[in-house]
Amino acid sequence: MEIIKSYKSMQQYADRIRSKQETIALVPTMGFFHKGHLSLMKKAKEVSNCLVVSLFVNPTQFAPDEDFDSYPRDTERDLALAEKESVNVMFMPEREELYSSEFQTYVNLEKLPNHLCGLSRPTFFRGVATVVSKLFNIIKPHYAIFGQKDFQQLAIIRQMVKDLNFDIEIIGVPTFRESDGLAMSSRNKYLDSNQRKTALCLFQSLEKAFALVQAGETDPARIIAKATSLIESHAKTSIDYIKICDPMTIEDVVTIKKSALMALAVNVGKTRLIDNRILEIKT
Amino acid sequence: MEIIKSYKSMQQYADRIRSKQETIALVPTMGFFHKGHLSLMKKAKEVSNCLVVSLFVNPTQFAPDEDFDSYPRDTERDLALAEKESVNVMFMPEREELYSSEFQTYVNLEKLPNHLCGLSRPTFFRGVATVVSKLFNIIKPHYAIFGQKDFQQLAIIRQMVKDLNFDIEIIGVPTFRESDGLAMSSRNKYLDSNQRKTALCLFQSLEKAFALVQAGETDPARIIAKATSLIESHAKTSIDYIKICDPMTIEDVVTIKKSALMALAVNVGKTRLIDNRILEIKT
Repeated sequence: MEIIKSYKSMQQYADRIRSKQETIALVPTMGFFHKGHLSLMKKAKEVSNCLVVSLFVNPTQFAPDEDFDSYPRDTERDLALAEKESVNVMFMPEREELYSSEFQTYVNLEKLPNHLCGLSRPTFFRGVATVVSKLFNIIKPHYAIFGQKDFQQLAIIRQMVKDLNFDIEIIGVPTFRESDGLAMSSRNKYLDSNQRKTALCLFQSLEKAFALVQAGETDPARIIAKATSLIESHAKTSIDYIKICDPMTIEDVVTIKKSALMALAVNVGKTRLIDNRILEIKT
Repeated sequence: MEIIKSYKSMQQYADRIRSKQETIALVPTMGFFHKGHLSLMKKAKEVSNCLVVSLFVNPTQFAPDEDFDSYPRDTERDLALAEKESVNVMFMPEREELYSSEFQTYVNLEKLPNHLCGLSRPTFFRGVATVVSKLFNIIKPHYAIFGQKDFQQLAIIRQMVKDLNFDIEIIGVPTFRESDGLAMSSRNKYLDSNQRKTALCLFQSLEKAFALVQAGETDPARIIAKATSLIESHAKTSIDYIKICDPMTIEDVVTIKKSALMALAVNVGKTRLIDNRILEIKT
């Protein structure tokens, strides 16, 4: 496994792989790997023989009051896990390597970020789209793998790739869950044992919603009301949003026809957790 | 010479060239070629054996009240001229090929556009940065050639390439001028014979400014005052801006040290013309 820190060296590496007619798959990460990350790496290895994992805690997607400084980091453990997954290159630039003091160019989407997480984190998706564009230009992948846990992010990346004509295939991978159903997230580390139990209410409300829709419920308002009371029955939770929306446009749906995306963000103590699920009408 | 209209075919063409270890040079244009365009093509041929010229009048860089619909077009003549310059590919997409109805992703710079042409044309450079990013992802060039006549555009493209880590070398080519000094521009076509004479005042004020600086003048205000009165001595001119600025940051300079960029935009009748020149202190 190679560790590359300079973007120029990474571009040269990518050119060498491409000149051999081999393909590159990218898994962009902020590190602190869990099984969700490893499942993205396994998927990448299925589609391509050269797997590049980027590890970069991207400052432009954190607001000043968010957890950039305290975001969990454990590079040594990450490198050991990556080695086990037969990662070919870990791209691990320093902050200054990607953002000079004169940095001023951002990639921005006009519609998709104006929902869900984009409302409480207004510059988040601009930061994501910008750093992902940079990583695409540096790593020159044929495939890029993203988790469906960050559903809105995945929708935004797909739209950006289409709009800016990146010649890259985006692959979404299902959310990896703990045995009790909690979606894997690096931020789960922040939870104490009581909060860990409480955190399950996100998954539970999605499962409840799925069951309701399977039983014939098509009114998002009634489903959201039930999810809200389920979550509020737990102490120290505060709901950022619970939405049932079109999975392409992320816009609210008035009635569930065939299928819809339910997505929610809930603060458990000070930890913001997100999860989502496709709700499908029984056919 | 090949004519390619689909972005997918263009990407496949670029991949074939790159797999032969050959290099691609891009000259992005809005067509209606003059000798300035041809000089960019000649430069491209010097650095690379595969020359792709894009011809696309980009709607996102025109404001609703600007001349998108009337922008001069003469595709047949352009193709004949391109053939003479040994252009390998003309990339000529339709509007819908580059902008779907769901298009929503823009590339935006936070500082460089807030000067000169960016002030009177607030969404112009966003449109330029966005379409150039798209062309870079479609044509996959090793080199991209731009005219120094659009000095601010060139500075913006260079900054964008650095910020988004495009693996592309940007080459600036000196402004090509008519025999009397008028900078070549597709918009010169709009000028009647009186306006054509008047238009020379842009070049004349730059030459006058250069002579003043060579003679020891270092105060931008005095130079700009003289250029203003020169231009205002012509009927039917209206000055958008006359600025003396740092060629890297495009910010106004207080005193000319060593060198500075003088740039101006003047409406001659209804036609907006721009020009610029580096002013240098005699050493």
